[in-house]
Amino acid sequence: MSSDPEAANPPSETDLEPADRTLVAGVLDREPRALAKTITLIESARDDHRRRAAKVLHALAPHAGASIRLGISGSPGAGKSTFIEALGLELLRRGRRVAVLAVDPSSPVSGGSILGDETRMERLSASADAFVRPSPSRGAAGGVADRTREAVTVCEAAGFDVVLVETVGSGQGETAVAGMVDLLVLIELPNAGDELQAIKRGIVEAADAVVVNKADLDPAAAERARRRFAGKPVAVVASAIKHQGIGEFWDELERLHRALGDSGGLAEKRRRQAVAWMWALIDLGLRDRFREHPAVRRELGPTTRAVAEGRESAAAAAIRLLDYVAADAD
Amino acid sequence: MSSDPEAANPPSETDLEPADRTLVAGVLDREPRALAKTITLIESARDDHRRRAAKVLHALAPHAGASIRLGISGSPGAGKSTFIEALGLELLRRGRRVAVLAVDPSSPVSGGSILGDETRMERLSASADAFVRPSPSRGAAGGVADRTREAVTVCEAAGFDVVLVETVGSGQGETAVAGMVDLLVLIELPNAGDELQAIKRGIVEAADAVVVNKADLDPAAAERARRRFAGKPVAVVASAIKHQGIGEFWDELERLHRALGDSGGLAEKRRRQAVAWMWALIDLGLRDRFREHPAVRRELGPTTRAVAEGRESAAAAAIRLLDYVAADAD
Repeated sequence: MSSDPEAANPPSETDLEPADRTLVAGVLDREPRALAKTITLIESARDDHRRRAAKVLHALAPHAGASIRLGISGSPGAGKSTFIEALGLELLRRGRRVAVLAVDPSSPVSGGSILGDETRMERLSASADAFVRPSPSRGAAGGVADRTREAVTVCEAAGFDVVLVETVGSGQGETAVAGMVDLLVLIELPNAGDELQAIKRGIVEAADAVVVNKADLDPAAAERARRRFAGKPVAVVASAIKHQGIGEFWDELERLHRALGDSGGLAEKRRRQAVAWMWALIDLGLRDRFREHPAVRRELGPTTRAVAEGRESAAAAAIRLLDYVAADAD
Repeated sequence: MSSDPEAANPPSETDLEPADRTLVAGVLDREPRALAKTITLIESARDDHRRRAAKVLHALAPHAGASIRLGISGSPGAGKSTFIEALGLELLRRGRRVAVLAVDPSSPVSGGSILGDETRMERLSASADAFVRPSPSRGAAGGVADRTREAVTVCEAAGFDVVLVETVGSGQGETAVAGMVDLLVLIELPNAGDELQAIKRGIVEAADAVVVNKADLDPAAAERARRRFAGKPVAVVASAIKHQGIGEFWDELERLHRALGDSGGLAEKRRRQAVAWMWALIDLGLRDRFREHPAVRRELGPTTRAVAEGRESAAAAAIRLLDYVAADAD
């Protein structure tokens, strides 16, 4: 990380380059192009882009926080996209503005998934009150999830009432998404079955709400499946493709979210999430700087081999590598 | 972390202070007092002690690695200590030297647990071929688990054939112990029941071997419980207090450990553990240095509050704090 002297002071509106001031104004004016361009800036891995993005985020942060942040998880085939489009259209009918983001650790580096997501949610994407953004490519800076987290801030600043963050049922994605949303929704199948593998178990544990989708295929089985999740604050059956149970789901979910807000639990959860995220970015930055140090670049390979082969203790190796960096700073 | 110029070179025997050379020689000569004093040095939080400890570990590392490293986990009441003493005595009968260490995230800062552990394993402690060390206090340097991990190295250099690392069934301890042992053993009760809470599930997932202890209380229930773990490489019933099934358990476990060694899986697992440990210590050191920086000391509190209250974005805060440190180094 280079040391831009001005960056050592809290960034202010005046730090913004003219182009970025225009972006910020555009996002606050809810201009789709400004929104898309801002998120593209945020996803860039270039260091100068990262710094500009940080200042843009700083300018937008005070305008964020008003939306309902919802994570949507489920195994492939559970009908996540169909459910998200159905929920999105339901929300549009209710006069809400909806943003859909995606965290997909396995998404291709190419932007291929863009077409995928937009065609998948064609009707939703067509609305001026909806914004559908595919998952950032793995080429994006830092963790893909961090970019998505920043995109949530931008969408809220752009006045979206509901931000839906979709993730694949990989476990990895859920952990990241659980750290950036208010509530996590799991989309299940009627015939999901009782035997859950470890990852799946963890996701069920983390979920605040469960939707047994495709209930039209076998209503009785769907109801049996729903009862298995009766312990959850929200557990409903639905058929996204027939648009059944979507409105009921939202009513229950909104009630749950309001209760969380009234209890102060939501504010506390968001505080914890923000501070944990700051520390994650700090650790990432410290590690990057460490890896960039000439002596570390030179020694890390051989040292790692020595530790792996037991020729050097991890403790001695860690202190030695840390001292290369310390020697410079002191 | 101060920058000791010599520490920027790989430590060598000659770096050892005379007192520490004596410690190293004593450990290699299997002297109980030298062993205990070395582990005390390792547990010290003092920076100069940490550096001396690193050099002592470096000198001992080449002599380590020959033992069977076993994690022993189980809920309070499962009879862990009784099982460990029974297993330890069995191993002594077989002419093996046994070290017992403990990781207990909830252990008191006072050395109070020392008396606890030693009285708990009186007969084992009495033997010259056994070494029982209580869990380091939370006042110990770094993570308690890291100190225990280093103690494993010291015990192996002292020629112990089997190192047992005990942990409480808290989940936190298991994760740490799983990262430092070859195999994880879970001690269960006959009437454990099917409904497992999330933490427990994770521990069962991670366990390589399960012992249903106290089988004498209800042999039929114990056998039923054992069948629930039939998927594990090792799943046996035993009664530590009556010394039943202990030898059989060890025979199966040793077979499993040998197979892991023959397949190359053990070497690979230990390589991964060592490198992961090195990185954990590096991250810890980087964070410590970061927190010590004057500007960070001054700004961290207000910045954390600003991020928690949404007045500053985590991204901007992280970059700003990192730049204070960067500005010095560049």
